[in-house]
Formats: sequence, C-alpha cells, structure tokens
Amino acid sequence: MTSYEPISFTPPTADPATYGFAPCEGGVCAAQGISASGTHAGFRADPNRLDLAVVAADEACVCAATFTQNRFCAAPVQVSRQRAATGVARAVMLNSGNANASTGEQGLAVAKESAHLLAQALGCPDEQVLVASTGVIGQQQDIAPYVGGASAAVAALGADEAHAHAAARAVMTTDTVPKEVSLEGTLPIGPDGAPVTVHVGGFVKGAGMIQPNMATMLSVVTTDVPITAAAAHAALLAAVRSSFNKVTVDSDTSTNDSCFLLATGAAGGTTIDEGSPAFDAFAGALRCACETLARKIAADGEGATKLVTVDVLGAATDADADTVARSIANSPLVKTAVFGHDANWGRVAAAAGKCGVAFDQYDVDIDFLGMPVLRAGMPVPVDEDDMLRRFEGPEVPIVVSLGQGSAAARVWTCDLSHEYVTINGDYRT
Amino acid sequence: MTSYEPISFTPPTADPATYGFAPCEGGVCAAQGISASGTHAGFRADPNRLDLAVVAADEACVCAATFTQNRFCAAPVQVSRQRAATGVARAVMLNSGNANASTGEQGLAVAKESAHLLAQALGCPDEQVLVASTGVIGQQQDIAPYVGGASAAVAALGADEAHAHAAARAVMTTDTVPKEVSLEGTLPIGPDGAPVTVHVGGFVKGAGMIQPNMATMLSVVTTDVPITAAAAHAALLAAVRSSFNKVTVDSDTSTNDSCFLLATGAAGGTTIDEGSPAFDAFAGALRCACETLARKIAADGEGATKLVTVDVLGAATDADADTVARSIANSPLVKTAVFGHDANWGRVAAAAGKCGVAFDQYDVDIDFLGMPVLRAGMPVPVDEDDMLRRFEGPEVPIVVSLGQGSAAARVWTCDLSHEYVTINGDYRT
Repeated sequence: MTSYEPISFTPPTADPATYGFAPCEGGVCAAQGISASGTHAGFRADPNRLDLAVVAADEACVCAATFTQNRFCAAPVQVSRQRAATGVARAVMLNSGNANASTGEQGLAVAKESAHLLAQALGCPDEQVLVASTGVIGQQQDIAPYVGGASAAVAALGADEAHAHAAARAVMTTDTVPKEVSLEGTLPIGPDGAPVTVHVGGFVKGAGMIQPNMATMLSVVTTDVPITAAAAHAALLAAVRSSFNKVTVDSDTSTNDSCFLLATGAAGGTTIDEGSPAFDAFAGALRCACETLARKIAADGEGATKLVTVDVLGAATDADADTVARSIANSPLVKTAVFGHDANWGRVAAAAGKCGVAFDQYDVDIDFLGMPVLRAGMPVPVDEDDMLRRFEGPEVPIVVSLGQGSAAARVWTCDLSHEYVTINGDYRT
Repeated sequence: MTSYEPISFTPPTADPATYGFAPCEGGVCAAQGISASGTHAGFRADPNRLDLAVVAADEACVCAATFTQNRFCAAPVQVSRQRAATGVARAVMLNSGNANASTGEQGLAVAKESAHLLAQALGCPDEQVLVASTGVIGQQQDIAPYVGGASAAVAALGADEAHAHAAARAVMTTDTVPKEVSLEGTLPIGPDGAPVTVHVGGFVKGAGMIQPNMATMLSVVTTDVPITAAAAHAALLAAVRSSFNKVTVDSDTSTNDSCFLLATGAAGGTTIDEGSPAFDAFAGALRCACETLARKIAADGEGATKLVTVDVLGAATDADADTVARSIANSPLVKTAVFGHDANWGRVAAAAGKCGVAFDQYDVDIDFLGMPVLRAGMPVPVDEDDMLRRFEGPEVPIVVSLGQGSAAARVWTCDLSHEYVTINGDYRT
C-alpha cells in the first residue's frame, strides 16, 4: 500500500518570539500609560453583570481603528470612524446590552452624548472619546446608564490586570470566556538603538458575528510603543487583515464590528514610523496579538466544540486562496461534519470546487487533522481509528493544496453544533 | 401610531396559466413519447429501495442539459456534458447510492460502460445515453448492478404516472418525498396556427446540496413539444437560471448536479425555434415547471420546517439583487431565526449589508411574513402575536427593498434546524 506524507508547508507564524516578544501579564493594561475598568452601568438588568468597559490613556495618544464594512452600520461606528481618522484619542468606551444600530438620528445623538459624558469625566475634548456598542439591534439606547455610569467608570479605572480583566468581561455577550492577550518585547528604539521594553495588550469580544438578538466583534488593543498615527494605522490594518478578518463563525458580518488601537508611547524611545527598522517587529507582534485574540473568537464561537483552521496552499493568487479557504470554513456541511467527528473530505473538496476559483480537481491534495485523505484528486486509504483519535483534540486543521501556484491563506472557524441552533433559534420558543 | 403598508411588488409569476398551461397527471411521463422506470439494481443494500431510474424517449430526440459548475465534477457529469452537447439523446439513466465522484479514470470507464449497457438494452448508440449519479463520493462505483440492472430497467419501462413516480423515487437520497411536476397546455403550432396540446413533465431530487455523505440535485424534465436543440437549450438555461439556480439549502454546490431536458416532438406540429411565436409560451411553461420543482427542493431541504422565499427589490442591478437575496438566504442566523419563529429583521438587515452591495441603510424597507418591520432603515412597531400566528404556515416570505433601482431577484431556501445538524453531523457518532 502506498503511504502518503502530510502536505508540507510553513504556516504563517503566530509565534511572537519571531519578533522578540513573549506573553506577559496585564491584558489591555500591559501597555504603560493605559488604565481600564469594567462596571455595571445599567444596560443589563442583572446588577452583577458588567456592561460598560472603558480603556483610557493617561493623556491623549495616537490611535488607529478599523470598522465593519456592513452597510447597516451602527451609530457608534459612524461616530468613531470619523473621530479615529484624526489619529488622536484619549479613551475607548464600550457597552454591551444594546447595539445602538438601526437607531437613526436619535441613536447618533446618544452615541455623541455618551462620549461627551465620558469626556467630561476624563477632562478631555469630546472628539478624543471613541465609542462602541454590542447587543440588541433596533432599540433606541437609553442615555440614562451613562449619566452616572461614565463618571463611575472613570473613577473605577486602574492599570493592573484585574482592571483589564473587568473591561474584557464587560463587553461579553454570548462569549463564554473573556478573551485577552498581552505581549512584552524589546525594540531598538533607545539611544543608539538600545533596546526599549514595550508591550502590546488587548481584549476582544465576539462569539457569533450576530448573537441572539445581534452582537458583534469588538476589540481594543493597546501599546506603549511610540509610533506615528500613520504607522499605527498601517500596522493595525495589516494585523486585522490576517487575524480578525480571517475568522468566520457563521459568515454573518455584524453591524458594529470595531477594532481600536491606542498607542501611548509611554515606553519611551524614538517614535516609529513605517520606515523605521523597528516597525516590522512591532507590526509582527501586533499581528501575533490579534491572531491570538482571533483564534479565541473562533474557539469560543457560538456552540463551538472545535477550533477549525483552514489552510489553502498552492493557489494562483492570494484572493483565490482566501476565497477557497472561506468557502470551506463557511460550509455548513464541513462544519457539521467536524461536529460529527467525520473527516468528510468530500465536503471539503466540494466546498473548494464551488466557489468559482479555477483549478483542476486532479491537482488537489487534502489533509484532514494532519492525515492525507486526497492526493491528486483521488481518495487515499485512511486509518479511521487514528482519525477518530485525532478528533479528540480541541483543534481541527484542514489543509488543501490546489496545485496552481504559490499563494496561501489561513482562515479560522468552528464547527456547527446543535448548540449553535439552540443559541440562535430557540431563544424565543 | 403610524401604520405601514406591506411593500408593494409583483413577484415573478410561477403560474403556468400565464402561458396557457395547467397542472395535469403523469409526472415525467406526461410528455408523449416518454417512458420511465424505477428499479432496484443493487447500489443500495436494501432490496426494497429503488436505486436506478431510467427516462427514455421512444426514439432518439432533442436534448439539452446543464451541469454543476463545481470544479470537482463527477464522472457521469463529464460523460453527459459531452454527449448532451450534441443535442440528441435517447435516454437518461440515474442511480442513487454512489456519486461516482473523485473516482478518476476508473470512474469514467464505469460511467461509459453503464451507458453502453443501457444503450444495448435500448438498441441505440452509446452516445445517446446520458448518465447521472448521486450518493457517496470517493468510492469507486461497481459496474455489477448495471449488468443485469440496465436491461431490467428497460424491461420495466412504462409510460404512465406510476412509472414516472417510480423513477422519481429511485433517485431519492435524504429527500423525504418524491418531487414531480406535469403541465398540459396548447401551443399554436398546428396547421395555420391551430392549437396543439403539449406537455411538460419532470422530477427532481435534492434535499441538501450535499447529504450525509454527499448528494446532489438531479432533474429530468421532458416535453413532447417539437423544438430545435438550440431552442431547447435556450429555454432550459433560462428556466434553470430562475428556478434551480435560485435554490439554496446550505450554499453547498454538489459535484453531481445535472438537469436534463428530453423533447420528443411527439405532440406533432411545427418545430419551434427561438424565433417562433410559441417559444415564449413553451419557455414560460418550462420555467414554471422547474420553479415548481425548485420550490419542492427548498421545502424538503434537510431538516427544513419552513420554505423561505426571499425577494429583493429596488436593486441597482440584477446581480446586486441576486447577491443580496443569496446573502440573506444563506445566512445561518436568518435561517435559525426562522426555525425559532423569530421575525429577526436585524439579521436580515445585517445579511443584506454584509455582502458588498452598495446601498444606504436609510433607504431600506423590510417585510417579514407580509408585515412591515423596517421602513427607511428604522424599525416599525410589530404586532408580535400576529407575527407568531403567521409563522404557523409552511412558507416564510421575506421582502427587502433596497431603494436603489428597479432590479429584483427571488431566491428560495429553508430554515436551519436541529435536524439539519443531526442529518449532517451525527450520522457517524
């Protein structure tokens, strides 16, 4: 019997050590000059449930942000998109329990007024406050929780890990766990290129793109690296492109997706721009941090029992690779097969073949859980017992080589379980 | 309180009366000159389960066909695509239980040999036999069932409704019901334009695009209208475009999708071409027949409890309308909401907004089950009790008006239930 080797490839590194960074304590507060709080302001009925998160810099600092491309975008997205474009911010305020989406002029007024209340408490211009919301769509947001809530949130600010953790919890909706990251490393930005210790921290929320009555992916990432607004923007865009934008739980893009970066510069040293030698290391560390958060979203997808990583190799173009990877990751039949511990490569092949990308089926190889299942378009013998054992782990890698070129893409998703249907279908019955 | 009227629009007619046709008996055998059989050849273990369908014309006749666009296409698709291009066929043979997909040269040989066996039994050239398969992918198909099975299927041919019904049953996989249609009407193709009675009949199988271990949509449609091969091809393409191509159960396109048209001309009269006055009526009736079958696929989708019809109006282009309609119809969150009897228009709005089609959210109106839920991008009051009552029916219409232009599209789907996950995820555990 012919034996087959797994497809050989070098996946994109998510190891921060590549860039001289390592995990550290602190979450979103790992960066010097950042404090955070998570409080109960009253968006949710349960007084024990945190529903307002604030991440604040000690003073106005560099910011960058990316937002949902959904044509139905929420009021806070409209406000923050405009303000983040200035490249300067003092704080990000995020609430859970109400998305302030499809709320028209009234919703915009509430978003601005809530920012005003936080700005007053912080003593900064309104325009330096960015806002984000997640929760029910199409219900007007009440300003009342912000009236006492904004100043209470500012009073509660602290710069340690416990405060970072509270902020990460306050934005949770159907998330089952808070999702945080923090990295420490050095960049050669001191005098004569001496190393300066810097940090990247952050949290994210997101489980379905839209949850029982609509939710979202929200993330705040911070750093104490001194960096220009343009470089921060470039690094954030690149990081988001290969992390949050490569996650799909259910192919449904939210109305409220927002990712913010605050860069305080508090680590000291020479300010980085896109041409600086230190830029690539910072951008790499930022990407690793975002990928860590992105994987946590997929692993905590609504009803998920497995994190699924889809690698597509040998595509003619990056766009082809992304299209095929997404087609596989969004296939309900692939996702239910993973839920059923079924290495159903036929569904993977069909999902690859349906998406309009040109290839010859007899050029295609597929590995499932590291085991060769298809070579040159034909099935190969599989040790089913070994395959079932591999399904016991928390991750399911699927690798598809198209044999057309050298472009590749990686997308994360999760399986499709009964619990997903329950979460999203049963809550009113 | 402002009251809102449902969105006013004229959906594309699926009423054959528009074209002078009405439902009749006979299924695929309604057309004169067509006989059919459904037999057990041995692709399935259960001897009581039909697994081989043959639809044969009394003599070689005009044919047209369309096939899956999936890059992984099955052996019978490769054989039939080439043969159907000649515009002449005698019969279509379809088996269930094995898809003969990802089977390479050996699979091609089996597909050709099976056609040869049927051709021998019918006494026609091999090239006049079209073949189609549905079932497990990646397993070599055994020629043995065809050896006695092909001649037995020919011996079993009959031209009545019972035989049509047996053929429709023989191609079922996860389908819970056979899906058939037959229409009778007149066309002005007799001497001096006198009316000639003609028929369109057919069946389809399909429940998931891919079922437990991979299935398919297969359809055979017949008519006794005298028509050129070019006109038959044009009419079939147009009919499939607005019927089968507008159905999505799970966004997963099969490797084996095939739709065949046999046109015997047995009704007599002048042969129709694309310029004939009777062409539009025939093409309209054919479209109505295909739409009837397409709706039956969606209603019988794996695990479906509801047929969902998504109409998108006011799009700038047909392509925009189709993209938005498909985005809504394929949204797991919309589909689980329907399963949960939740008129969750927020998910419909988010699905419309995510797909890259340009519109202003404040131009958008949405109706759910005939009730206005969104006007100019803002929610309107909904009588929830009335809405829940409307969910009791078998169909859920969703209408979205984008306010950008006058293009429209209609797509059919079904809800996403626990049963779908069970069918596709649980069969190996």
